[in-house]
Amino acid sequence: MKRVNVGIMNVTGYIGIDLARILVQHPGVQLTSVTGRSGAGQKLGDIFPHMADFALGVEAELGDVEIAFAALPHGASAPAVVEALERDIKVIDVSADFRLKDAATYKEWYKETHPSPELLAEAVYGLPEIYRAEISSARLVANPGCYPTCSILALAPALREGLIETDIIIDSKSGVSGAGRTLTLNTHFAETNENVSAYALGGHRHMPEIKQELQNLAGDRKVSLTFVPHLIPMTRGMLSSCYAKLARETSVQEVRELYREFYRDEPFVRVVDNPPQTKQTLGSNLCLVHPVIDPRTGRLIVISCIDNLVKGGAGQAVQNMNLMLGLPEGTGLGAVALYP
Amino acid sequence: MKRVNVGIMNVTGYIGIDLARILVQHPGVQLTSVTGRSGAGQKLGDIFPHMADFALGVEAELGDVEIAFAALPHGASAPAVVEALERDIKVIDVSADFRLKDAATYKEWYKETHPSPELLAEAVYGLPEIYRAEISSARLVANPGCYPTCSILALAPALREGLIETDIIIDSKSGVSGAGRTLTLNTHFAETNENVSAYALGGHRHMPEIKQELQNLAGDRKVSLTFVPHLIPMTRGMLSSCYAKLARETSVQEVRELYREFYRDEPFVRVVDNPPQTKQTLGSNLCLVHPVIDPRTGRLIVISCIDNLVKGGAGQAVQNMNLMLGLPEGTGLGAVALYP
Amino acid sequence: MKRVNVGIMNVTGYIGIDLARILVQHPGVQLTSVTGRSGAGQKLGDIFPHMADFALGVEAELGDVEIAFAALPHGASAPAVVEALERDIKVIDVSADFRLKDAATYKEWYKETHPSPELLAEAVYGLPEIYRAEISSARLVANPGCYPTCSILALAPALREGLIETDIIIDSKSGVSGAGRTLTLNTHFAETNENVSAYALGGHRHMPEIKQELQNLAGDRKVSLTFVPHLIPMTRGMLSSCYAKLARETSVQEVRELYREFYRDEPFVRVVDNPPQTKQTLGSNLCLVHPVIDPRTGRLIVISCIDNLVKGGAGQAVQNMNLMLGLPEGTGLGAVALYP
Amino acid sequence: MKRVNVGIMNVTGYIGIDLARILVQHPGVQLTSVTGRSGAGQKLGDIFPHMADFALGVEAELGDVEIAFAALPHGASAPAVVEALERDIKVIDVSADFRLKDAATYKEWYKETHPSPELLAEAVYGLPEIYRAEISSARLVANPGCYPTCSILALAPALREGLIETDIIIDSKSGVSGAGRTLTLNTHFAETNENVSAYALGGHRHMPEIKQELQNLAGDRKVSLTFVPHLIPMTRGMLSSCYAKLARETSVQEVRELYREFYRDEPFVRVVDNPPQTKQTLGSNLCLVHPVIDPRTGRLIVISCIDNLVKGGAGQAVQNMNLMLGLPEGTGLGAVALYP
Repeated sequence: MKRVNVGIMNVTGYIGIDLARILVQHPGVQLTSVTGRSGAGQKLGDIFPHMADFALGVEAELGDVEIAFAALPHGASAPAVVEALERDIKVIDVSADFRLKDAATYKEWYKETHPSPELLAEAVYGLPEIYRAEISSARLVANPGCYPTCSILALAPALREGLIETDIIIDSKSGVSGAGRTLTLNTHFAETNENVSAYALGGHRHMPEIKQELQNLAGDRKVSLTFVPHLIPMTRGMLSSCYAKLARETSVQEVRELYREFYRDEPFVRVVDNPPQTKQTLGSNLCLVHPVIDPRTGRLIVISCIDNLVKGGAGQAVQNMNLMLGLPEGTGLGAVALYP
Repeated sequence: MKRVNVGIMNVTGYIGIDLARILVQHPGVQLTSVTGRSGAGQKLGDIFPHMADFALGVEAELGDVEIAFAALPHGASAPAVVEALERDIKVIDVSADFRLKDAATYKEWYKETHPSPELLAEAVYGLPEIYRAEISSARLVANPGCYPTCSILALAPALREGLIETDIIIDSKSGVSGAGRTLTLNTHFAETNENVSAYALGGHRHMPEIKQELQNLAGDRKVSLTFVPHLIPMTRGMLSSCYAKLARETSVQEVRELYREFYRDEPFVRVVDNPPQTKQTLGSNLCLVHPVIDPRTGRLIVISCIDNLVKGGAGQAVQNMNLMLGLPEGTGLGAVALYP
Repeated sequence: MKRVNVGIMNVTGYIGIDLARILVQHPGVQLTSVTGRSGAGQKLGDIFPHMADFALGVEAELGDVEIAFAALPHGASAPAVVEALERDIKVIDVSADFRLKDAATYKEWYKETHPSPELLAEAVYGLPEIYRAEISSARLVANPGCYPTCSILALAPALREGLIETDIIIDSKSGVSGAGRTLTLNTHFAETNENVSAYALGGHRHMPEIKQELQNLAGDRKVSLTFVPHLIPMTRGMLSSCYAKLARETSVQEVRELYREFYRDEPFVRVVDNPPQTKQTLGSNLCLVHPVIDPRTGRLIVISCIDNLVKGGAGQAVQNMNLMLGLPEGTGLGAVALYP
Repeated sequence: MKRVNVGIMNVTGYIGIDLARILVQHPGVQLTSVTGRSGAGQKLGDIFPHMADFALGVEAELGDVEIAFAALPHGASAPAVVEALERDIKVIDVSADFRLKDAATYKEWYKETHPSPELLAEAVYGLPEIYRAEISSARLVANPGCYPTCSILALAPALREGLIETDIIIDSKSGVSGAGRTLTLNTHFAETNENVSAYALGGHRHMPEIKQELQNLAGDRKVSLTFVPHLIPMTRGMLSSCYAKLARETSVQEVRELYREFYRDEPFVRVVDNPPQTKQTLGSNLCLVHPVIDPRTGRLIVISCIDNLVKGGAGQAVQNMNLMLGLPEGTGLGAVALYP
């Protein structure tokens, strides 16, 4: 297999470096260029000792690659994406810059005018389970956030099939790596360890993203969404507990069947019969989905979990890359979860 | 102050030993007798080295005390409670045996015929914020479960004031000590660490207890309750995220005011303006309650947290004891949270 | 008891705030003044929600108190100490500024000329088990570092009695709170969790402090010391494993007897017969010491542990304060470890 | 590549299941048979959900394979090994049964007469960095323990080159998975979390194993070894801090050079210039080794770390398998550490 040259813009965050980890082990591509907002001029292994075996230097500018991942913060990502596209480099943007289809919604939540609204229509939301065909032919893919990936996959079958009412509550629990590598008091070990808290109760930026996609799945019925994220004391892993009233009478068997059918050919979604645990996805690209009916209230509860940096970040980005390059979708993504 | 003799039946579980920790530091009582299902004949400090400074032997039978805590498993607790009552010893039962008012509900959830149904009417549910007067004159107090304590305190003001509709979702996150000291794979370090999971999706035994009390608060309106507990990788601490539709238009200021008024004189409930964290309650008897309105959905969200072994167990039991003995309610319970 | 007014200079670090926690519960003193390098003008409860019940404002200047704790960083502490002493305020300095008796050693390790070398002779090293009498009459006490406290107490009996040779290795393991509240990559949750590392292999600043005190205990025999600290993924707790050749033949019984005799009247040191665990000291002021002989090598191994913020910081500082004020040494320090 | 059929005897422990994880992703072999002491008759994915994608049933008897891993407890392993050898199946035993060359030492430490002493001479100690040639032609390989792997690799260059004196201290810190999947109070989450302790101070069973191999490296000079293991609150990872006096004057540059030369062609040992962290090896088969000189004492300190279940268990076993099958040594072992 001739390897395709790929690059990472801003490799120094947690998703950036996890992309590097996956890509150096990927048989179909060659990671030939990584840039860093900090660290330019250093070797990757100087900043990240676990990568010391790979002779990659962090550069100031992206080299000549066929496809690139933009792992810059939102706002900074869009201009870099534009520049890459102008060089005929396909881009998978793991920032939030191209996820929301509506520039006004972007401004409302990110407090800045969208830098490149002309690309919003073209950008494809990179959730292969929903947009596989569009991703395959895309120039620009907006890689979903971790909370949206976990939550949308939990609810997509039920929403598309009209199984539930559209007043939805998503209560998510995330490991701390989701907050990134930037130092904050909330991610300071002594503050975060042995602690759990809800945050962003006034509205998390992943909320409009989740809502946009749930609305697409719900069609005409208007989605009402409460989304509450929680920070829990672990490094990787995310679990969403989703609640919605059933729209019609059904059984858990029928629900599971419907979910299994929906995800029948999916390489990275498993409908499971026991409550899943994040540990079962550590380092893997799988999303585990467990729908159940609360018999006393007629409510559908769906528990879903992922590794927030893999299926919720770097892994899904590589899954999108595989589709964009015409490679088998699972190439380089076969890692079994690191249990225990 | 003349010290009252108190005892603990089955000191060897986590709530039992936390009771001992609080009682040996309590200025109004003297812990003179502890029994153990295992460990009889040993010194308490042999089993629990942190108690080595206290010369207490674990006995097979409860000594002569004025008041006793029953910390036996459900089913085993009721007979021990009956025996103590017959010896004119007041009892605070931290097991589930006298929490449910309806023997049939007990049988449904605990799979056994209630051993002493005749006491169910007399037993007082030991949540001082709701039943203070009854506790003060009680012979038998049923100490609430940890999930119920955390959840009921979150919702009591809203329910009693008719602020919310009665279709309620409670999504709770608990530290692992709540699962007790009995060895199970689910509490094995390598399985539980770096992991989060939902459990008891078919119905947790604390559900009917929460529902009973929420129903009491709701009056005529029928409560519908979905309760989903989660296990998170920390030792102590519990956080509940509660969701219900507002029954009328209101503002967050009004809601906070209503909550503050409801808990105005409470020594151990704080209505807080920022999302609380379990770490802020570590080792303390406080419950922190944070109501907020989701403006996009007209939903009340209440985040509450406690130390599951203190306000959710041993601390609340001592609070009940203080009331039963006519001591100031906060005696021996002034510990400030151990932060960080 | 008439309460003595006390103050804390720079309450906003972990030892500062733990001092506040202990002092507000101390029956012999009243915490009337706290200052902060950051946070001046705010209420203490705004910065530290677990202290919200205490109406203390963070001030820019220390108020009129009888005794004060200086919890500033080294270098910044000395001038504040001098100023307080000039106001006839006794000082317990929890920084490193007055621990080393030799200004040249200070300069070697802290890379700055000592700001107040004239006070070095007067300052008393605040380890009550060794310097109780001097502390009782001191104006200025230098509160020991956490590693020194844990390690010196492990070795003092053996060194003073000539039981061991003076070529010593101390391998210490510390919880992350010991690194303070300042944000660093090494204390970022995702970096520190599920990770262990040795650090400061070229020489930790607590090394000369430990060596100074071990040398005092060893008398004429020259101490050679290797000290290697490790960071482990927990919040509070420190364990030292100390290794030295026996200087003469002995038995573990004799060694334990010697240790018990040495610490016979000590309120906060326990010689234990089983390997101690840091969890047995969580939130308590105890140091647990466990000497054992490696029969195959004729080596004394001593395992010791403390809560690094209590006996290794704020608790010991309060113990020193009690001595300086003529209060019973254990006043306000009776908290039993928070297990589990 | 024609795949070789391999099997695992007793897949249900942590090393057993980690072997399965690595083998199902290994391009040169096919895992066709797994047995379990418990769980026979179940699917592997029923017991270990992260393996659900692999259609393997747990059998009572090992099927026809070319090579098998014995992951039974010591004592139970030897008979199973003998039986497999009689069926002409090569065996890699991850238990302790064939690690010690001396049956009397085995009896001293394992309290049982060795079941198959006739095989002790033939069995090869499976540390490829020392015994590569012997492993390649072996019928029976005794896979080293985790502590021995980590510690021997730290000291081998220094010992073989006569760089250090032979009175050695090894202070090791292990994640809890090293204690296995069997339930014990010491591995109960609430007991182990936020806790560190030394254990086996009277002598750990890995001590004679380490000593045997260090002695082989030291040649005529008699090794004296103190080995103290510690349990720290994390799942995977092991770090050893090794101490020995330098036998001659040298520099850290010379020491590093000597170590680099010793491990020049090793695929899985890295001599690193900064203190290594266990997180840098999570899920990888690497051992990181960092020798340093304590300038004040003339002591060599070597810090080494591994993933205790990979290089300290399953990964090393597969490395041995590769050698025994004539496959490239690193086949199936290329996973980059899962950071953070």
